[in-house]
Amino acid sequence: MKAKSYAEMQCSIARTLEHVGSWWSLLIIRDAMMGARRFKDFEKSLGIAKNTLTNRLTKLVDIGIFEKVAVSENSAFEEYVLTKQGRDLAPVMIALAQWGDKWVPHEQGPSTEIIDADAGRKLSRIWPRRQDGEIIPLRKIRMKRAKGAPKKVWEEA
Amino acid sequence: MKAKSYAEMQCSIARTLEHVGSWWSLLIIRDAMMGARRFKDFEKSLGIAKNTLTNRLTKLVDIGIFEKVAVSENSAFEEYVLTKQGRDLAPVMIALAQWGDKWVPHEQGPSTEIIDADAGRKLSRIWPRRQDGEIIPLRKIRMKRAKGAPKKVWEEA
Repeated sequence: MKAKSYAEMQCSIARTLEHVGSWWSLLIIRDAMMGARRFKDFEKSLGIAKNTLTNRLTKLVDIGIFEKVAVSENSAFEEYVLTKQGRDLAPVMIALAQWGDKWVPHEQGPSTEIIDADAGRKLSRIWPRRQDGEIIPLRKIRMKRAKGAPKKVWEEA
Repeated sequence: MKAKSYAEMQCSIARTLEHVGSWWSLLIIRDAMMGARRFKDFEKSLGIAKNTLTNRLTKLVDIGIFEKVAVSENSAFEEYVLTKQGRDLAPVMIALAQWGDKWVPHEQGPSTEIIDADAGRKLSRIWPRRQDGEIIPLRKIRMKRAKGAPKKVWEEA
């Protein structure tokens, strides 16, 4: 499917997509954020073939999204636990979830609630903000080429 | 690659991934947010085959992410413009970009800066917040099953 490796691109969006790797990876990370830790948890939740799941989890451990942790000191059983790098994908997951809630809602409503544990309330919509924390309307946001980065084709006109 | 259609799943993350469809779709949306409008802009930027790009753009129009707009009243030329639904993916794109900047930085630095047009400054990191706007530490966030949603396998224990 891929014409070239996104990882070679300088764009951080492309690099993130290359790194996280596939929809499966994002769904595995989602399950981990919801409490899954054991291989068979992910397997049953996703309805995914064992070898596909093994490949995905191995890659996610290799690139530092998950670590394998022994269940107890003398146990041979291991669980998959998100690293800081993996947990740091929470804003991506929340943004995906909230977009889906709004634009492609399921007839039975959302299956997941994302809650502030202290207040017991739903989070507000995740949204770009100024340095002072104020919400920015989307029309006020510019995505522009950084100094020294290759020019975009549509900037040539 | 896919064992089943994510769209059938109740999870909004899975539904969003199914809807947006592929890495290509996200990179097309990224380019549009950076100013691309013409077929050849996307084609050159992505180094993507014409037929793949046509398929992707057609699907993105069909599902309401883009609309085709005549360049001028009497012109046969059309451009691809993000709809509100498409522009609403900005939090996803910004979260992906900022994660990449942090965890998989390019040796030449980021290619894109995301700017508050009024202040001329970079946005703050997009992050989950309480209803009152206060930032929430990730450890305080719970993703939990909504009332009536199917139980997760790891919740059976």
